[in-house]
This record gives sequence, C-alpha cells and structure tokens, in this order.
Amino acid sequence: MPLLIKNGRIITADDDYKADIYCADETITRIEKSIDAKRLPKSTEVINAAGKYVLPGFIDPHVHIYLPFMGTFSADDYESASKAALAGGTTTLIEMICPGPKDDPWEAYQLWRQQAKKKAAVDYTYHMSVVRFEPKVRDQFKKIVKDGVASFKVFLAYKGALDLSDADLYAMMTMAKQQGAIVTAHCENAEAVDAMQKQLLAAGKTGPEWHEPSRPMAVEAAGVNHLCTFAQLTGAHVYTVHTSCAPAVMQALDARMRGVNVWIESVVPHLILDKTYAERKDFEGAKWVMSPPLRDKRHQDTLWSGLRSRIISTVGTDHAPFTPKQKEMGRDAFTKIPNGIPSIEERVDLLHTYGVAQGRLSLNAFVDAGSTAAAKIFGLYPKKGTIKIGSDADLVVYDPKAKGTFTAGYSKAGYSGYDGMEKIGRASAVTVRGQVQAKNGKFVGTIGRGQFLRRDATHG
Amino acid sequence: MPLLIKNGRIITADDDYKADIYCADETITRIEKSIDAKRLPKSTEVINAAGKYVLPGFIDPHVHIYLPFMGTFSADDYESASKAALAGGTTTLIEMICPGPKDDPWEAYQLWRQQAKKKAAVDYTYHMSVVRFEPKVRDQFKKIVKDGVASFKVFLAYKGALDLSDADLYAMMTMAKQQGAIVTAHCENAEAVDAMQKQLLAAGKTGPEWHEPSRPMAVEAAGVNHLCTFAQLTGAHVYTVHTSCAPAVMQALDARMRGVNVWIESVVPHLILDKTYAERKDFEGAKWVMSPPLRDKRHQDTLWSGLRSRIISTVGTDHAPFTPKQKEMGRDAFTKIPNGIPSIEERVDLLHTYGVAQGRLSLNAFVDAGSTAAAKIFGLYPKKGTIKIGSDADLVVYDPKAKGTFTAGYSKAGYSGYDGMEKIGRASAVTVRGQVQAKNGKFVGTIGRGQFLRRDATHG
Amino acid sequence: MPLLIKNGRIITADDDYKADIYCADETITRIEKSIDAKRLPKSTEVINAAGKYVLPGFIDPHVHIYLPFMGTFSADDYESASKAALAGGTTTLIEMICPGPKDDPWEAYQLWRQQAKKKAAVDYTYHMSVVRFEPKVRDQFKKIVKDGVASFKVFLAYKGALDLSDADLYAMMTMAKQQGAIVTAHCENAEAVDAMQKQLLAAGKTGPEWHEPSRPMAVEAAGVNHLCTFAQLTGAHVYTVHTSCAPAVMQALDARMRGVNVWIESVVPHLILDKTYAERKDFEGAKWVMSPPLRDKRHQDTLWSGLRSRIISTVGTDHAPFTPKQKEMGRDAFTKIPNGIPSIEERVDLLHTYGVAQGRLSLNAFVDAGSTAAAKIFGLYPKKGTIKIGSDADLVVYDPKAKGTFTAGYSKAGYSGYDGMEKIGRASAVTVRGQVQAKNGKFVGTIGRGQFLRRDATHG
Amino acid sequence: MPLLIKNGRIITADDDYKADIYCADETITRIEKSIDAKRLPKSTEVINAAGKYVLPGFIDPHVHIYLPFMGTFSADDYESASKAALAGGTTTLIEMICPGPKDDPWEAYQLWRQQAKKKAAVDYTYHMSVVRFEPKVRDQFKKIVKDGVASFKVFLAYKGALDLSDADLYAMMTMAKQQGAIVTAHCENAEAVDAMQKQLLAAGKTGPEWHEPSRPMAVEAAGVNHLCTFAQLTGAHVYTVHTSCAPAVMQALDARMRGVNVWIESVVPHLILDKTYAERKDFEGAKWVMSPPLRDKRHQDTLWSGLRSRIISTVGTDHAPFTPKQKEMGRDAFTKIPNGIPSIEERVDLLHTYGVAQGRLSLNAFVDAGSTAAAKIFGLYPKKGTIKIGSDADLVVYDPKAKGTFTAGYSKAGYSGYDGMEKIGRASAVTVRGQVQAKNGKFVGTIGRGQFLRRDATHG
Repeated sequence: MPLLIKNGRIITADDDYKADIYCADETITRIEKSIDAKRLPKSTEVINAAGKYVLPGFIDPHVHIYLPFMGTFSADDYESASKAALAGGTTTLIEMICPGPKDDPWEAYQLWRQQAKKKAAVDYTYHMSVVRFEPKVRDQFKKIVKDGVASFKVFLAYKGALDLSDADLYAMMTMAKQQGAIVTAHCENAEAVDAMQKQLLAAGKTGPEWHEPSRPMAVEAAGVNHLCTFAQLTGAHVYTVHTSCAPAVMQALDARMRGVNVWIESVVPHLILDKTYAERKDFEGAKWVMSPPLRDKRHQDTLWSGLRSRIISTVGTDHAPFTPKQKEMGRDAFTKIPNGIPSIEERVDLLHTYGVAQGRLSLNAFVDAGSTAAAKIFGLYPKKGTIKIGSDADLVVYDPKAKGTFTAGYSKAGYSGYDGMEKIGRASAVTVRGQVQAKNGKFVGTIGRGQFLRRDATHG
Repeated sequence: MPLLIKNGRIITADDDYKADIYCADETITRIEKSIDAKRLPKSTEVINAAGKYVLPGFIDPHVHIYLPFMGTFSADDYESASKAALAGGTTTLIEMICPGPKDDPWEAYQLWRQQAKKKAAVDYTYHMSVVRFEPKVRDQFKKIVKDGVASFKVFLAYKGALDLSDADLYAMMTMAKQQGAIVTAHCENAEAVDAMQKQLLAAGKTGPEWHEPSRPMAVEAAGVNHLCTFAQLTGAHVYTVHTSCAPAVMQALDARMRGVNVWIESVVPHLILDKTYAERKDFEGAKWVMSPPLRDKRHQDTLWSGLRSRIISTVGTDHAPFTPKQKEMGRDAFTKIPNGIPSIEERVDLLHTYGVAQGRLSLNAFVDAGSTAAAKIFGLYPKKGTIKIGSDADLVVYDPKAKGTFTAGYSKAGYSGYDGMEKIGRASAVTVRGQVQAKNGKFVGTIGRGQFLRRDATHG
Repeated sequence: MPLLIKNGRIITADDDYKADIYCADETITRIEKSIDAKRLPKSTEVINAAGKYVLPGFIDPHVHIYLPFMGTFSADDYESASKAALAGGTTTLIEMICPGPKDDPWEAYQLWRQQAKKKAAVDYTYHMSVVRFEPKVRDQFKKIVKDGVASFKVFLAYKGALDLSDADLYAMMTMAKQQGAIVTAHCENAEAVDAMQKQLLAAGKTGPEWHEPSRPMAVEAAGVNHLCTFAQLTGAHVYTVHTSCAPAVMQALDARMRGVNVWIESVVPHLILDKTYAERKDFEGAKWVMSPPLRDKRHQDTLWSGLRSRIISTVGTDHAPFTPKQKEMGRDAFTKIPNGIPSIEERVDLLHTYGVAQGRLSLNAFVDAGSTAAAKIFGLYPKKGTIKIGSDADLVVYDPKAKGTFTAGYSKAGYSGYDGMEKIGRASAVTVRGQVQAKNGKFVGTIGRGQFLRRDATHG
Repeated sequence: MPLLIKNGRIITADDDYKADIYCADETITRIEKSIDAKRLPKSTEVINAAGKYVLPGFIDPHVHIYLPFMGTFSADDYESASKAALAGGTTTLIEMICPGPKDDPWEAYQLWRQQAKKKAAVDYTYHMSVVRFEPKVRDQFKKIVKDGVASFKVFLAYKGALDLSDADLYAMMTMAKQQGAIVTAHCENAEAVDAMQKQLLAAGKTGPEWHEPSRPMAVEAAGVNHLCTFAQLTGAHVYTVHTSCAPAVMQALDARMRGVNVWIESVVPHLILDKTYAERKDFEGAKWVMSPPLRDKRHQDTLWSGLRSRIISTVGTDHAPFTPKQKEMGRDAFTKIPNGIPSIEERVDLLHTYGVAQGRLSLNAFVDAGSTAAAKIFGLYPKKGTIKIGSDADLVVYDPKAKGTFTAGYSKAGYSGYDGMEKIGRASAVTVRGQVQAKNGKFVGTIGRGQFLRRDATHG
C-alpha cells in the first residue's frame, strides 16, 4: 500500500526542512515540497504530520531478545520485542548472538536466525559473538560474515565463560581486519571482577547494591584501553558497547588521537539512571542490575556532552528483559541476578525527553545518535538511518508535544526501569518499509513482516 | 543555462552512489539514476562524469584576500583569488575582515564588502574580526550579524594590535552567545610571543628559522585553553582556526568533554608541510612563514587522525598571499615577514593526494572536511556543502586518476609552497550555481558572478 | 637554656627512630640513643617524650597577618598569630606582603617587616607580592631578594587591583629566573571572575553561596595553565598556591611532564571542608568564603592522593583572619566579603586527624607536607624543616593519642571554621630555637622572640 | 679498620654540606665539621675528599647476575658483577630471582642465594619473581617474605613462560598487600608481543631492528594500565620496572592521581640510548636489544623531567650481561637474542655525565634517583641510601671533575653499550660497610665480603 506523509518537518542527522514524502514498494520514492494526494493511487494511505517531526526509523544497535542465562531465558521473544520496539519508534534491531563457549558458532548463528523467523515485525540483524576462536572454528566466522553479518562481539568480561585469551583476541581481531568486519566489545576485566565478586560474597555482601562495587570504573576503563591497544596493533575497527563513565570514554578518546579506529556506544540506562537505583532496598535494586553497572550521576554529563559533540556515536539499550521473578535467582548472591534493564520501548522517548527537551541534544544529534550513526557504522546506511529517495520507508512521525509518563509496555519483562518518570514526545506513527506498524504507542502492524538485513563488510 | 552531469559517482559527507544530476535556475533540481538528456531543454550543457566523482563545491572557511599588512597589501584581489579557488575546486570562500584597532567596524565591513563586488567569481561570505569592543561600537557588530555575517573572529595573538582584553573578550563572547554567532579564534598568547620575539631579535636571531621558536606549541595550547575556558563560562560556541599541533588539539578535546561547544579547524599547510621548510637557507624559508608556524612533522599524524575520526571538523588554508618580494620586508627581522602560505588553489588536491590516496581519509571524510562541515558550522548548509535537491548547483566533477605536480597557479603571490610535490587528482569541471567556472585547472567562467552569502545566526 | 627531649620517637620526612635530642645555643647539637641528663648543665630543661612523636617545627608557607582589605584590616597581629601558630605546632610562618598597585614595593616591604618586630614569637619570612612591574620599580625587587626574601607572589586574579599584564608577567618571571627566586602564584583568571560576578550580582545573586559559582574550577585550571606556560617559556620556577581541585592539579602535572619546574601547594580548608559550608543559610556561609573557593567534596580525594604520593608538595593555610563582623561588609554582595578562613592553629592537628589517623598519609608524608617540603622549596632547609645536628631547635613533641574537638583559639578572627569537628592528636610542647613557646595548646613563651629569616635565592 | 673521610662535600637526597665522616664497626659513627685524625685509632684509614663529593653508596634496584636463558646463562657471576658495580660506585644490588614456571619457588630462592655466597663483594638482596601462583605454592612466597625478601616481581610479558593469569595476578597482589610486600612488574602485554613477533618473523623480518616494532609503546602503556588497575582493586603497592616512554609514564601518573600507590623506575639505557642503536647494521644492533626496547630519542626528555621532579623515583640498569657471541643465538630471529645491555658499571657515571653535568638533575636528585629512593621503597633505608650516624658506611668519594670515556669494564659481557661516549666524573673511593672496595675505577677489595640484606615488609 503506498504511503504519503504530508506537512511534516523532516529531520535527519544533518537536515531539517518541511516536505511531503511518498513511499511506494517499501521505499521512499518522492520527497517534495508538496505532493498532491489526489494524483496518487487511491489506495495510498495518507498521514498528516502537521506540527510533527518526520524522522528516520530508529535503530537500536544493541539488544538481547533470545538470551539463555544460567538455565533460564530472557523473557522476550521476537514478537514482544518487535511490538515494544515499534511502539517506541524503533524499526531496526541489532541483536547479539550469544552462544556458549562449547557451542558451534555456525549452529548458534542458525539458532538465532531461527528465533526471528515469522515473528519479527521490525527489520533486524546481528552481531556475532566470538566466545571461542580455536583454529578449527575460524572459517565458520568468515562464513557468517559472508552470510551478511559483518560485525563481531567480544567479551572482555565474564571469566571462564565468554572471554577469549589475549592470543585468541589478537588472532580474532586480525581476522576481523582482513574480513572488513567491525569488532564490538564489552570491556571489563573478567578476572578482576570475578575475584572481587568472590571477596564480596565471602564477606556477606550479597545484595544488588554490591554489584557496582564489584565492577568499578577502573575495570571498565582498563578494558577499553585493552581493546584499543589490540585495535592499534591489528588495525581492526572497534566499537565499545555500553560505555558508562568518563574514564572509559577518555581511554577511547586517547586511543582515537593515536589513530585507533574506535567508535563509542552509550546506552540509555547510563544516560538517565544512576547507581542509587540499584541500591534500592529489599532487593528492589535488582531491577537495575546491568553490566557495566549504573554509575554515579555525574557521569551522565560526560555522556551527554559526548553525544552532543558526536564524540560518542550511538545510543543503544542493551535491552535484556528478565522479569522481577527471574531476578529473584540472585536473591542470595547478586552475581546470579540476570543482568539487564528493559529499555527497548522507552529509548527514543527518553532521548527526546531528557536530551532534546532539556537542551542537551539538537534534533539532528538526536536522530544521529538514535539512528543514523548506527546505520553508518554497521553497514545499513543509506538503506536505513536516513530519509532519502531510495531508502527504506522506515519512518517515524513524532509528536514532540505529547506528554505522559513512562510505564511498563510490551516487553515481557513486566516492568519499566523508568516507571513514573516524565515523558515528553511520542511516536504518532511508525512505518517499516512503508507499512504502518505502530500508532500512538500501540502496535498495529503485522507480526512476521520483519526481514533479516544482510550487511556487507565495510571496515577494511 | 541548464546543466546535466551524467554517469558520475556522487560523493557527499555521508553518501556514495551513482546518479545523474540536473540543475536549473542555479540549483539542483533532479537527482536520478538516469536522466535522459534528450528530454531536457536543448540548451542544456551536458558533462559526462563517467569514471569521475561528483562532489559538492568545496568551501574554504579561512582565507585572506584583501589584507593590509604594515603598509603593504596582500597580493591577491577577488579576481585572482576566485580564479585560483575555482581552478582548485573551491566554490565558496569565507574571508576574514581584518580592520585595525582604530577602524570603525561597520566601515571596515563595508570596505571589505566593496572589494568583492563585481570581482568575485565564487560565492563568498566573511568572518568579522573583533579587534576593539568598547561599548560604543558593540551595536555595530549586532548590525553586521543582522546583515548576514553571523561569525566573528578574535585574535588572542598580535599584542597591542589586534588582541582584546580579557574583559572585552568576555563581553564579546557573551554578546556572541546572545546573537547566536560563533566565535572563531586565532589562539596564541600575544604577550608571550612578543616578549620572546624581542629576546630573539636582541640575540641576533633574525632569520625565518626563528619564527617557530618564537611561537612554540605551549603558546598555542595555552591560547586554546584560554578560549575554551571563556566559552565554558559564557556558553559561546567557538572554533579554533589553524590548529597546528597535538597539544592544541588535546586542549580543545578536553574542553569538549567538559561540555564546551568547540570545533577545530586545521589548515592544509600544517597537514602537509613541516618546520624544516621555514628553516631553508638564504631567507628562502620566509615563503613558509605563517602563524601558528609549521611544526615538527610528527604532529601531522595527529591532524590526519583527527580528521579521519571527525574530531577535527574542517580544513581551510589561511591563504594569505604575499610575494617573495613582499616577504623581503622581514629580511632583517623575521617578525616583519608578511605571514602566509598561498594554498587556495592547492588545498583540495593536497587533501586528495595526501589524504585519500594515501588511505588516511575516506572519500566521505574528504568531502566533509573540505566542504560539508564548514557549511554546517557556518550556516551555509544545505544551500552549500552538499548535493541535494534544492541545494545550489555548486559541483565539482573530480578525476581521481589525474596525475601531475603542484606548481604556482593563479594567485598573485607568484609561488607555490608545494612546488614540485606529486599531485593525484584534479577537478575536471567546477560549477557555481549551475554555471561551469573552471575546467581542468583553468578558469573558464565569469568574473563578477560570485554572490555574497547572507548567513543567519545558528549558534544560539 | 639548654633543652633535652628524651624517649621520643623522632619522625622526619624520611626517618622514624627513637633517640634523645639535646639542644644548646638554639640549635640541635646532639641526637643519640640515650643522653644522660645528669651529665648535662643543671639548667637543662628536660621533656619526657615517651609515647610521643618528636617532629620538626611545622612551617606554614602561606599566611596573611597584616592585610589591608577595602578599608579594613585583617583581625590578627603578629602577637595573636604567633600564639595561634605555636599552640598548633607551627614554628615558622611565611607571610604574604600585599601592597596595593600604587604602593612603592620597597616601602611596602619595610612596612610589613615593621609589623613583626618585637611582636613575633615564631620565626618568619615573606613572599613579596608583585602587583606592579613597570621598569622603574624593578630594581626594588632585586634589592628585596638581596635582603633575603627570595620568593615572589603574583596574582592572576583580582582584576585591575593586583594582577599584572602578561607582558609584565613575562618580564617579572624572566627577572625571577635570573635572580633565582621562585614565583608563587594565585591562579584564577581575573577578568572572567570579574565579569561573572557582575552578572551574578546584577541577577540578584548576592549571597555567599554564589561565591563558588563566580570562580568555577575552569577559571583556576586556566590560571594554572597560564602560569605554567609562562614558566615553560621563561624557565622560572613556579609554585601554585592553594590549589583546590583536580583540574588545576592536572594542569600542573601535565606541565611538569613537559619539563616545567612547578610545585603544588594545597591548603587545609580545601582538604577538609567543601562548598556546602559556604552555602549555609542566613549569611553564615560567609565564614567559609575564600578564593579559590571551597569545592565539591570529591576533590578532596585528589588532594590527599597528591599529598600521599608527594605530587602535591605542601599544605599551607592561606590564613586570612576576618571576624564575622567584618564578614558583614559583604552582606549585600558576596564580592565584598573579606576572604579567608582562619586555620593557622588548626592546620597540623587537622592533617593528623584527617590524614594520618585515617590512613591517608604516612607519618613521614605528614611531616614533609607540613614542614620539610616548604623548607626545601623556600630555602629554609636544613635550618628549618628537619631534625639534624646543626638545625634550629624548632621541635614539636606531639601526642598522637590526645583527643578533643576543634574550637576557636588565639586568632582574633574569633571563630573556627572547623568548630566541633573531632580532633586526634595535639602538640604537647613546641620549641622555637630551643625555647619552649607552647605547651598542650597554650602559649607559654616570649613575645618578640621570633626572628626574620633571611633566605638566599636557590632556584637558579 | 676504622675509616675517616675528611674535607668532603657530603651530598644526600636532601642535604649538601661539608663535614668529616668517621666510620667504625662498619657504620657511620660520627659526622662533624672537623674530626682530628690524630685523636683516632692509629689504624684509621684516612681519605682526603677535598674537592670531591661524599655520596651514599649507590643502589641498583634492578640487575640480573645469574640468569638462565634458553639453555645458556648470562655471562656474569657475583664476582665479576661485584667488581663492575663497585668500580662504578654501586655498593648494593637487588637481583631478580627468575625461576622457570615449573621450578619450586623456595628451591629457586635457595639456588639464587647460593650463587652469591662467598662471591659477592657488594651487599645484595632480591626481588622474588612470581611465575606461578597455584594455591599449593603460595605459602612458599610467604616464607620467602619472612626470610627477608619483601618484594615480588611479576611479568606481564613473556607469554606462556613467565606471565601469570589475571586470576593468579589478582590473588598474588592480594597476598602481597596482606604481606606488606611491594610488587615490581615488567609491563608489556605478552600475547600481543608474541603475535606480532610471529607476524614479523613470518614476513622475513628477523633482524634486531625489528625488536622495537614487535614491542611498541602501546603494549607497554597497556601493561602499566593493567598493573595499576589491579593495584587499585587490591590495594597492593606496585613499582613499574624499566619504564621506557611517555605513554607508560602517563598511565602510572594517572593512576597515582586516582590513589594508586605506584612508583616508577627508569633504567639508564632508556635515558641515554635510543632505538637507532638497535638498528645498527650487520647484527651489531643485537648488543642493544633489551625489553622494553630502546625508544625514539624524544622520550628521553620525559624520563629526565620525571626524575628531576621525582615523579620517576629510581634509575636502575636491568643489567643482563650476554656476550656478543651469546647474542648470536638470535642471528636468525631477533626473538632469540638474549635481552640485555650491561650497564652496572656505567650507571652512576652516566647519570652524572648526562644528568648532573648537563643541568638536567640536581646533585640531590642524582643521589635520590641512584640510591636513596630505592633504599626507601625497598626497605633498606636508613641502613642504606643515606649518610647518617648509624647507617652502614657505604660511601662513595666522587670526583666530579674526572674526565674520560666509557669503555668495557669488569662485566664478562665483554662490551660496553656506551663505548666511546664522553664521561665526566668518577668514583675515587668506594666503601662497603667501612672497607674500601674500589679506587679510581679499580676493584681493590675483598671478594666474599658482601652480605645478604634481610628486608622487612613495609608496604602494608
């Protein structure tokens, strides 16, 4: 069904102008001052965007949907995650494929691909985690790149479970450079965290308020330095996921000035929340346990400054949906609390409310951080991440004047980490390749419409 | 006359695709996969860009054309400067208006405007230097902003001549913030330079090789810190011109992480040349005297890294054309050597040869640094700096395979600072608002065609 | 009268051992495992220091006693200041000579010298402020150095009153280098502070809580950078007084790594107090107004870390005693509040209580920071600042187990900024050149005993 | 035999004065303006130090004497090493005990102790390398600390041979903190170096000029960051051995400002030599292969600045004596070149010639860097490292006016890395506990006189 969006104010990472947009065959085919609806096919759906922004569909570069964790699984599936994403204005997800260290990489890749089929209502792609890299499995990763997943994820955290040896890390980054695939990384020193956690637990410090002290900023900054050193040596392009604090950002920035090709991701919990949430009494704090942990409030200024000046490229969520009941697994030991704060639905509105509306982010920077930069870094641009002729008709008609309150939404996690906080702005209509999938915060689309996005290697 | 550019590879700061471009009435009106020339007006000029890039016209954000200096004047006028710019692919110039401290600002503004009339073949605008700021002249600056010149220039260098007191600097930056005008700044501590120059001359150190030691990096880094501190306090947006070395860049970067809105300009001499040029014997070095001076070669890596990661936004020239004969004024004292290295014609090809062709810059980064970023920062975008429907048809058809050697061109300075260096790439055709003004390095256009560009304040 | 201190634990900046000390003719003449009192002159006074430390007399490198301020004078004179110093374990003071910009330097020097005569009970010397430096007065400063005052003070703060132009600063530091005199400096940008203060007052923000916002950290860090840049250029040795926060310390440290000879002073208010004191209601905060202002609490960690690792050399007070009544001068405008927090009596016990007793400082570092480092930097060592044969018998028998509470003491300021805070440790006996001047916090000595200390230039 | 040193200028880390020194029973018993030789025992040896300095015996905190390497052994034994040390003014050595990963720590300790017995002519102690740390061997390390060796050495370099896992590193540093022992560390990332070396060799880059590129500065800086992170987390006190370049120093300094207790060691090759030595043709460069490698010359300024301001605490040698013939082992692969530049005899004179005589170091800083600081950090002070009553009579009468040339000395390595360089200054007489062991560069003492120095833990 053709689509016409009229009278909107189009905002991209660079531009800000008024025009009408016409979409046919899933892509944007016309952008003109004024398009006369009468001359269009009768089947054309018309949305009046007067007084509203028209934005590129938002992209969340860092989510978990299917996620095994200590015998349980994260609460969402592609259906609930898609609804949450679309309700909040996000039209593309990049999910982490997270096999265990004994799993066969190619099989894991197939397993994750399987989860999305017929269930996704957003378009999607993956970062392929590398949690083993002995010679016999290396070709599987090349095959995955060729299959269209041109980005890896490594964990410098999670001792004995997911982390690579430095020798394997070097080999893996060398391969990534050769393949032109970017390496995203969770940067925390695994052994240090493990040792501190054992000490804390042995001392009877078992509550969620001890999660942050067990993963202090020094551990994260050291991880970023470590990653960037290996990037400097191998030439690989790297991307630090969920960078949470000033010392970690500074390490990446220092590396950039030495010539390292490093991009920085923040995630919305670190921009909005602080560690006092995880310190809430009676195990309530468990809802806000994620890694790297929520930090002292003053680091939020660094993150917003970084986004405004585009030193920090992207804002993801690290959406990892576990119910309060699942969080109970860690009642006796914070180390067993499933990590994650569901944010997939809230992200765009949080950025608008606490970024744009408070004068911390320009509208262009908002779009760049929430959509365009991720598209460029991960090889989705200009199909995704912008409003151009030929681009996919993933569009968000956004009402900047809507007012409300954050509350739990579609995620099966069953709670919102931002519950009760003020909300300014809302997606009035959200399209995926030209079809309206959400309206005014409600999913109105088609489950199964989402497509896998093949991405070519672009970081050679 | 309508214009059609066919078969080119269009490259902007973000995009890279093949399409045809049609321009009418001075702007770009169509961008399509294939535009049939036969259906266009017969008068349409057709350029075949097969095998070539089509780039937005380049913008030089930092040039001097009319420049009084110790009783003489810089060698170029708008005619020679326009020819040089266009031959090299530059279609817009931003000139510094440089009155003396006793001149009336509004009169100076009129004087500079007068120089360009009927002589410019490129479009142009200005940065308005503020070399006095007592209360009675302040309204003149507001009037100039309203007249369309929404950027200022301050000198923290040039003691007793051009520098403001800190009290006036604070007042001036407060006004700039209120007016939404950005403040560009030459950052060197005037008094320190003055004192060191006197010491050097008194010690008989009078040759051009003493120019750099009289303006060491510490003086520039301190200037950047000073500017950024005042920007932090007043909220003004600032831009450090011709940033030459790692310590200066780091000061700006530190400030950015504190929330300061600062952009960094490099200029092409600092990217390509080093201080050994100014140390050439028999006063030959005078040709390479500029301020801040050419530095040790290793700082070039910092500047290229900064451009690649877009931490450094722009590349200008600080084109200031003085003939070798004029340079003779400083034969007895390097402090009297007219400062400047003519680069207006060479800039784009230098960036392509030593940036793109050597793998230091992507094509997108090349366009951003040479054109788009300046357009955005200075309120010219999207009229200038990109290739979009509705943008001015300032276009460069660029042949990346052309090979040659740098040599003196249109500038009346009469020499090239890059003489004999290898050149890869050349503008095959250069248009200003749809009219071809240069072909294959030769001016073929119309003197007087250039227009003054009114710019609104955008840095509120 | 000879003096024997028996059974004490002698602690210097380097050493820690048990021995007896015998003093005759004002100096230490014997340090031995055990000195038999029976073999000494009968007149020998014997102090049993069993269970106590014996420390070098403490030195306060930064005090104001005679201080004209907007028509009033600071509350102390040499008699009250001496008593306060001695009661707290301090045996040497370095006072700032603070003439006005129209005063004759030599006359000011004589005036300040006059204040101490017959009134001082501690030994003392001066830093000579340079608030004007036109050629005709320069020889006066050389004469003052030759007279034994080999250190200068400059203000980068206090616009139009005490600050030098950069040209004069450069000339002054060049002279200091030639004379071998060190330059101490108050580092805040005067014009920026002045402009912000006018804005705040104009906005009706007149209370003491606005003092800190009018002198933010950026202003101090910029001042330190400025000083260090001039030190780098002239070769002068410099010393940043009352360094209050991490950004300022980092600027000095960066400079040191570039080869700048810079020492860092902290003062005890910044180590112990924070800006919430100055925010106390009903003008109570005025008691805690000093410049640079009290900062956010987290900067205390930086200062203690710096002292522990001896990156920060000294701890002074910036004692500037004004009564609560005098503070009333600024009731209508915080800019008129006389600056200063009286701390001369509390300093040593504060360092012991909040440094040593809390494990932040070793005993050696405590002595170094409170005494030895200042002696070395300012040419008093080894006459002062250590316990050696031949050194002046300025000794403190210190009881580390004494417990109490801070309260107002001898200073005529009439209040303590630390009132009611816990105190651990106290000087049991304090000697100046072999004579006991204080016991258990009470002055028991002779007014007028204090001597002027001639110091030779040592920073060539 | 009693000893009297007359008329000398005594210089310690803090002091500089003229006095006579009398030594009996191996220690300093009198320091007086003038001691009358006639009143001393007739057996007293008298040295006239007029016109010379009297310095504390120098301490080399980082040497290898007995060192197995790939089937061979370093060339020196305690006899040759003692002679070299004493000839150059060094009276105490701290040797690294370097067992293999399968060796029993306590047995290795005994083996190393055995080497020195009856052969040492200097006093000596050890750093105990920890190259395995599984639970069953941990008590052995505690036993070694109790036996008087209160410092450890860890290697973050040498993959699969000497490096610990991060888990063991954390456990080991936790134990060190509990035991009050300091952890010295070789900071380079083992895996990264290993991978790069394989790549270089595979590319046919086998000569000694490829040694530096295989261990770039980033690898060392990352190692320092890693060590300091673990120190921050465990509270252990750490010491970075042979810190070679500005990035590594800056990482330690940043850590210090975060509260990490870290000391920095430089070694004399990095202060004097640069990487061009290792690039000498025809395998000549092999003589200058050590790790971390010799760097670009500009890093020397950083190291000297650090020493002058005492940010860098000590200067050792990393003396590791291999003959040119032994170096041939690496003719086909630089990775097999035995690492080390013999410097034990040259160190003090190099510091004097290129530090003191060139104005880079004060005499006090020279003594501190070469002797006192090491004594303090490693628990030898005040027995060693200073000139005080009660201290060991380890003294150097130093003639600052002696002129000569560096050349091969007592080391069995058979060459000097400084051959032919200018030398200013020489030890005229060197005593160990009161007995003259060297005169004018010649060993004249008693082999076997050297004693093992028991050191208590002091870093709790």
